[in-house]
Amino acid sequence: MPQETENRTVYDVPIGLESAAQSSKTRSEFDSMGTVDVPADRYWGAQTQRSLEHFSIGSDRMPKAVYHAYGYVKKATALVNHQAGRLSDWKKDAIIRAADETISGLLDENYPLFVWQTGSGTQSNMNVNEVISNRAIQLLGGTLGSQEPVGPNDDVNMGQSSNDTFPTAMHIASIEAIDAVLVPEVERLADTIERKADDWMDVVKIGRTHLEDAVPLTVGQEWHGWAGQIRDAVADIKASRGGLYSLAVGGTAVGTGLNAPPGFSKEVAAKIAELTGKPFVTAPNKFAAQGSLDPMVRAHAALRGLAVSLMKIANDMRWLASGPRCGFAELLLPANEPGSSIMPGKVNPTQCEAMVMIAIQVLGNDTAVAFAGSQGNFELNAMRPVIINNFLHSARILADGCARFREFSVEGTELNRRKIDEYVQGSVMLVTALSPIIGYQNAAHIAEKAIADGTTLREAALASGKVDAALFDKTINPLAMVGHGLAGA
Amino acid sequence: MPQETENRTVYDVPIGLESAAQSSKTRSEFDSMGTVDVPADRYWGAQTQRSLEHFSIGSDRMPKAVYHAYGYVKKATALVNHQAGRLSDWKKDAIIRAADETISGLLDENYPLFVWQTGSGTQSNMNVNEVISNRAIQLLGGTLGSQEPVGPNDDVNMGQSSNDTFPTAMHIASIEAIDAVLVPEVERLADTIERKADDWMDVVKIGRTHLEDAVPLTVGQEWHGWAGQIRDAVADIKASRGGLYSLAVGGTAVGTGLNAPPGFSKEVAAKIAELTGKPFVTAPNKFAAQGSLDPMVRAHAALRGLAVSLMKIANDMRWLASGPRCGFAELLLPANEPGSSIMPGKVNPTQCEAMVMIAIQVLGNDTAVAFAGSQGNFELNAMRPVIINNFLHSARILADGCARFREFSVEGTELNRRKIDEYVQGSVMLVTALSPIIGYQNAAHIAEKAIADGTTLREAALASGKVDAALFDKTINPLAMVGHGLAGA
Amino acid sequence: MPQETENRTVYDVPIGLESAAQSSKTRSEFDSMGTVDVPADRYWGAQTQRSLEHFSIGSDRMPKAVYHAYGYVKKATALVNHQAGRLSDWKKDAIIRAADETISGLLDENYPLFVWQTGSGTQSNMNVNEVISNRAIQLLGGTLGSQEPVGPNDDVNMGQSSNDTFPTAMHIASIEAIDAVLVPEVERLADTIERKADDWMDVVKIGRTHLEDAVPLTVGQEWHGWAGQIRDAVADIKASRGGLYSLAVGGTAVGTGLNAPPGFSKEVAAKIAELTGKPFVTAPNKFAAQGSLDPMVRAHAALRGLAVSLMKIANDMRWLASGPRCGFAELLLPANEPGSSIMPGKVNPTQCEAMVMIAIQVLGNDTAVAFAGSQGNFELNAMRPVIINNFLHSARILADGCARFREFSVEGTELNRRKIDEYVQGSVMLVTALSPIIGYQNAAHIAEKAIADGTTLREAALASGKVDAALFDKTINPLAMVGHGLAGA
Amino acid sequence: MPQETENRTVYDVPIGLESAAQSSKTRSEFDSMGTVDVPADRYWGAQTQRSLEHFSIGSDRMPKAVYHAYGYVKKATALVNHQAGRLSDWKKDAIIRAADETISGLLDENYPLFVWQTGSGTQSNMNVNEVISNRAIQLLGGTLGSQEPVGPNDDVNMGQSSNDTFPTAMHIASIEAIDAVLVPEVERLADTIERKADDWMDVVKIGRTHLEDAVPLTVGQEWHGWAGQIRDAVADIKASRGGLYSLAVGGTAVGTGLNAPPGFSKEVAAKIAELTGKPFVTAPNKFAAQGSLDPMVRAHAALRGLAVSLMKIANDMRWLASGPRCGFAELLLPANEPGSSIMPGKVNPTQCEAMVMIAIQVLGNDTAVAFAGSQGNFELNAMRPVIINNFLHSARILADGCARFREFSVEGTELNRRKIDEYVQGSVMLVTALSPIIGYQNAAHIAEKAIADGTTLREAALASGKVDAALFDKTINPLAMVGHGLAGA
Repeated sequence: MPQETENRTVYDVPIGLESAAQSSKTRSEFDSMGTVDVPADRYWGAQTQRSLEHFSIGSDRMPKAVYHAYGYVKKATALVNHQAGRLSDWKKDAIIRAADETISGLLDENYPLFVWQTGSGTQSNMNVNEVISNRAIQLLGGTLGSQEPVGPNDDVNMGQSSNDTFPTAMHIASIEAIDAVLVPEVERLADTIERKADDWMDVVKIGRTHLEDAVPLTVGQEWHGWAGQIRDAVADIKASRGGLYSLAVGGTAVGTGLNAPPGFSKEVAAKIAELTGKPFVTAPNKFAAQGSLDPMVRAHAALRGLAVSLMKIANDMRWLASGPRCGFAELLLPANEPGSSIMPGKVNPTQCEAMVMIAIQVLGNDTAVAFAGSQGNFELNAMRPVIINNFLHSARILADGCARFREFSVEGTELNRRKIDEYVQGSVMLVTALSPIIGYQNAAHIAEKAIADGTTLREAALASGKVDAALFDKTINPLAMVGHGLAGA
Repeated sequence: MPQETENRTVYDVPIGLESAAQSSKTRSEFDSMGTVDVPADRYWGAQTQRSLEHFSIGSDRMPKAVYHAYGYVKKATALVNHQAGRLSDWKKDAIIRAADETISGLLDENYPLFVWQTGSGTQSNMNVNEVISNRAIQLLGGTLGSQEPVGPNDDVNMGQSSNDTFPTAMHIASIEAIDAVLVPEVERLADTIERKADDWMDVVKIGRTHLEDAVPLTVGQEWHGWAGQIRDAVADIKASRGGLYSLAVGGTAVGTGLNAPPGFSKEVAAKIAELTGKPFVTAPNKFAAQGSLDPMVRAHAALRGLAVSLMKIANDMRWLASGPRCGFAELLLPANEPGSSIMPGKVNPTQCEAMVMIAIQVLGNDTAVAFAGSQGNFELNAMRPVIINNFLHSARILADGCARFREFSVEGTELNRRKIDEYVQGSVMLVTALSPIIGYQNAAHIAEKAIADGTTLREAALASGKVDAALFDKTINPLAMVGHGLAGA
Repeated sequence: MPQETENRTVYDVPIGLESAAQSSKTRSEFDSMGTVDVPADRYWGAQTQRSLEHFSIGSDRMPKAVYHAYGYVKKATALVNHQAGRLSDWKKDAIIRAADETISGLLDENYPLFVWQTGSGTQSNMNVNEVISNRAIQLLGGTLGSQEPVGPNDDVNMGQSSNDTFPTAMHIASIEAIDAVLVPEVERLADTIERKADDWMDVVKIGRTHLEDAVPLTVGQEWHGWAGQIRDAVADIKASRGGLYSLAVGGTAVGTGLNAPPGFSKEVAAKIAELTGKPFVTAPNKFAAQGSLDPMVRAHAALRGLAVSLMKIANDMRWLASGPRCGFAELLLPANEPGSSIMPGKVNPTQCEAMVMIAIQVLGNDTAVAFAGSQGNFELNAMRPVIINNFLHSARILADGCARFREFSVEGTELNRRKIDEYVQGSVMLVTALSPIIGYQNAAHIAEKAIADGTTLREAALASGKVDAALFDKTINPLAMVGHGLAGA
Repeated sequence: MPQETENRTVYDVPIGLESAAQSSKTRSEFDSMGTVDVPADRYWGAQTQRSLEHFSIGSDRMPKAVYHAYGYVKKATALVNHQAGRLSDWKKDAIIRAADETISGLLDENYPLFVWQTGSGTQSNMNVNEVISNRAIQLLGGTLGSQEPVGPNDDVNMGQSSNDTFPTAMHIASIEAIDAVLVPEVERLADTIERKADDWMDVVKIGRTHLEDAVPLTVGQEWHGWAGQIRDAVADIKASRGGLYSLAVGGTAVGTGLNAPPGFSKEVAAKIAELTGKPFVTAPNKFAAQGSLDPMVRAHAALRGLAVSLMKIANDMRWLASGPRCGFAELLLPANEPGSSIMPGKVNPTQCEAMVMIAIQVLGNDTAVAFAGSQGNFELNAMRPVIINNFLHSARILADGCARFREFSVEGTELNRRKIDEYVQGSVMLVTALSPIIGYQNAAHIAEKAIADGTTLREAALASGKVDAALFDKTINPLAMVGHGLAGA
């Protein structure tokens, strides 16, 4: 294609095709297979319309975040193509304006495609190419559907393939989901848990292992245990971004970079890094980058790690809050709503339940992601839509789940000090502290006797003759049994 | 509650609260915890509003099909309560009209809750109770939000708990999804495959095992193999309805039936059977029915079985269609859209890919469903929303996927007879037919020689001296090697 | 192959090749690729040896149960081949004796192959063919490794392929595992639970939903809920045998039955049915039977269903036994061993934990089975070893787990009546019974007040003025609140 | 316990209890619950014996690698206890000798317990304590079963709990499995693939996306794509060690460090680091370290990542080797064994199939690990045995699988140059290179025409009038279309 020599103006036309739509409900668009009628009030073209019709499956739509991310790809490639003299100023300007509108979500309703489409994401790439093409044509005063003067393939997709740009958009969208959506909410939750843990650092409570009474720890230690799990999970999520920063763009159809000029990979990645403010780089091995979706599988494993931790924490909270009269009853969760349609006055740990279900969903999503990740063939893993949809789904429900859980359950949780103290006083497992003094077997017999006879540990200990009152009272001091801080002995 | 003695009229008021909404944007509603403002143009009450605010998580909404099913529960219980003299004529009439409107979807926009809510589904049950209560109040000329003369708990939820009605609605919705949504589309797909199989019953093609050339079969046999898998999967889905026909309603809060009158279980199940035309019965063991979600787990396993079959079939089709020049190229799939944004003229097996991704998603959903199914505690499995959402999701994408796959790929698939014949002629594995005559080891050496030397099987066979031309030509007859029909020897 | 006319004697030689092994450590065996040295004291041949060397991966060996099942296949095919005049009397007799020895496990140490081998199971089929061939040769006074007069391919494998016989052996082995290993133990567990449930049918206890106090039921009802789950799971496992009764044998290489005589399928299936006493039949669609492993996927889903149920039950038991002083403490599990290396006198619900871990493993195995089930291609699903290994693993650990759980935990479980009664007396959720009389909202306020003030329900109820002492005492009668039996109201 | 003042000799007694076993088959051992008979020729004590009897479930034994790792824990704690004056010289010496014998596997047959035991691993810890105690007693000339002068709890387990030492042993065993078993084999595989990739860096072949013909790349690029996947997977496995280096020991029963002296955590971790040569450190948060198994879940996710990559690679290889006459036939895999019991001369990609099945198993194991990881409660995740067993299983089959795959398939793979060249010549997708010159739509029409008419691309291109022979021949040069190296344009 010879470079255009003409110069055209980019008009400041607001988004919208309503007037076009008034005269006729449809507009004719074409692609290499022929012409197709599309809704007159939408920017998309023939291939989007074909996909809409052929892939009307369920209600799962390709997440808008993918298109926002794709906007960066189209903007960056246009800038690099322009810089290399492959795209005129005015084409570049028009494309960039449409790309910016895509990034910011202003064109969201022009991205209607389903998740269950071609496995490469080509149809969503063409959706972006078509919308940007037509929007650019509109800005340039051209005729929608003419593909002139800005064509979806030759201009908007210049030097690109779906095969390299779709995973690029997946990575950008995933980083955004991690950095902007997920991590802040998870860290807020960890902050809240740590704040409460600090408040309760000296409240001694009974420990439980195997669900059974064990030796004491403090409420603060227990809560810091939860926070520690979350902090580690967040660290792993952040580490998982490493693979996502590596971008396939520049590999084009099969990784060789055919039809892209030398240096394109690096320049586009650098441009995307500049536009997003994230340390994206070009993937050193484009064949791995396009033939696999391994970095996505690894990143979702990190989300799953968080789900695993949150499930444990939400379960602990709801068990500790069980009652009010016939359960552990150590924690008092906020009563946000009546819990039962039939049992008046019942309050349930509903935020914990929602969190547990979210965790379960994320584990299910993870199965799908890993399975899909294994199903690549040759130069393409054609399981991209199912992976990105599950990834963004997991990130979103984890983020929102953490926010609601924190806001409506964790922050308002209070201690039932009476119960907590009662347990510590009543437990016989404090006998453990006697073990180094009188030996494990003697200590065991004291504990067994106390349980069998229903006596206190003190009564059984003194009755055993192995320990006198002074030694007992000095040794069996719950406060002295919880150690210091979080690092154990 | 003394039975009301007054008589009131049920007015024929169309659905809608617009006029109410004009004067004020919100209406005050109350529950046992106090008052809450709700949108004036919606029928829901305090508990729905509380849930909306506390559980704004992601974009997963409780599927409308659950509410449609719940409509049957509310209608059936109202009828039985009325019959037993527990509900007046006019209350019953008003409730039933609102229930019917719920069933038919006319009130859909009044059911906005999220999937990630209380694990019992109480909030969705209360949503139904509140909407039917307020709609009934409107029909009776009362004041919305007054809970008079039809209360959400005392009247609409009479003799019920979420604990028994939500799984009842889950079962009804699942049966509907199986019978009305899924099975018809799957059977249509099997029909189409069988029709084409019949057409191609005599087209001999090379068989492949371990991806490697094997002895011949016919295209029709291969396609009937696929159809057979689908038929078996459908039969298993139908069989899985057995557990779903068993309804928990009548167990109320914990399975004992507290606050429901004797006979309630059976009567309501019979009424639901009558209203839906499905063979629902009361669950013989309400403690199992409410403490577990095992029938849902089993039913989803049947959906997964279909996914497993469809994945194999879609994979086979796309591999057999690989090419056009450098693949198996036995099948010609319809070219529905350009396949690549960079490679002109490329056509891809996109419907197959969509189907494969759907199958993967269903396997992921299945992991979530089984995991959730294992997480019940005591008298309740509080993982219901995640299970019903995944179940209906799987059913829907399988159904739509089968429809699109059939319509846009299977029906238009054609054979590449030239390639098919070429393979049969060229394969050396036809040597197998010589094995019973000259022995396995001799036959093996002939095949190995042909492969090593790049000769035809005939050449290698004659050169071996183990077989003469007459015997070879009589024995190595592909048409005679494919047997008869589907049942093997 | 012309039928042999000679007659040979089958000698009564005991199993064993020790004398052979004394003179030399190895024996030479051959296949179509050449000769291989095998251990002189083993019956296997060249292909087994090749597999042993090429697939030494981990410590997972193909389960012996597969070979026992394969013995039936070889015996049945020999009988049918003999009946059809394809196998002489003495060949048949020798093969059958070796097959019987395989069935009974006497030749187990001759079946050493790994799970991770060829996906068709060909190497295990050849292992059987080779062992039976050599054992038959020994019985007939021939030379081991000569393949004369009974060849592994031409005689033992006559009319068969691995492609049809391996899934046949899988089905036989799976049915055996279900009928002889798994179901009896599961039913014994259900029997035990039901016996205890009957004993405790009138012990009123507090119900719990969302882990929170709910209305009462009896211990017997709760235990019958568990038993009901198990009974349903067993019924589903039994139903899943339907697909397993359908045998592929007779389809040979690709389902067409090449090299097997007409009627072979039906006759062999009938013979296997006769030999095993199970209702095996020939698969009506051999292409589905060999191209897929769908019936195995479905049967494992049924095992998973049991795991899901057992996990809930084991979890309930360990939570109800939590304590002794700081948990629910309703159940007293047998103390089988000291629970802690550091905490003297601690007893833990270890059988429950083992059961939970078994359930988790079965869910993991199920993921593998379903995934493998989806990975068939064309005329073969080459993921058989991984599927049968997981299936038999799941069946075995479920069976043994149920046995140990019953024997060492369920049977010895006792009630802590003091705690159970205390909970019923203390709970405020019994207010639910007042709801139909004073309305849900009034009842709710009473409950909330009792919880807030720490009073009894009775105190709060009388203080509310909504109910007097007589009405309260008549209504709030736990025994009257548990209904009758298992079917709810 | 007062520190012993006596001094005793550690005799150099070889391992073995045969003479003891001759006089009697059993020996009496005791624990706090009473006495138990154990086999006289084994070192274990009462608790091991109880576990053996109560948990005889399946054939899964706790991996020996766990005991080898536990040896380090017992050695390190003994050294630290001795240094602190809590253990005499001779006790320390005896314990260390027994620990060393455990580490080196010399006592393996004394560690017989099942995987399905208590979820904390206490029984395996006690097994180690008992064996080391009795072996130390033997070395000191004492009476086996007397627990004197070296007791299993008071001496060998001094300052420890199963709760902190079992996860410590899990981490050590996992690091060993990664470093010594898995990574070397995976890297050897990557090396081999890269070596072959380098050899074939200039062999142009057709690319395939969506299984369909695409533009060319080189065989070397494709193979380097595979190697790149493996390298990334290995890097992630190595990174996953981060969490595993963090050790729980010193947290004792619930994380507080009760009964361990100050500084114990750090000192023992440092000692373990010294003994193993690995950078182990003490976990900063013992409550997270003992309440969760999150680092194990994350490390297994890394193994799964490798499985996902290997599955893609093994699949690619077997598809590319499909044929010999009716498949892709680009690769010639080594023929290690006859492929079929019925089809003479058939060779199958069996190593690839084994690898695919291994990958599937690892994904199944991963589901179990993540599920188990989510099931912790309070101060303990009691799902340890199922997690470590799956982890070590995955590591082992991946390692061995990579070794066999490399040795018996990858190393011997050759190219079928004739086929490879033929495909490049025949493909019409090379039209892509014309796209930047004549535009995408024109190029598409040329490709479509060539496919429809069965002509070469050149013929169709020239006939289109859009390109002349000179331009075509200059542009459509496969060698020029593959770019340079791996990084794309």
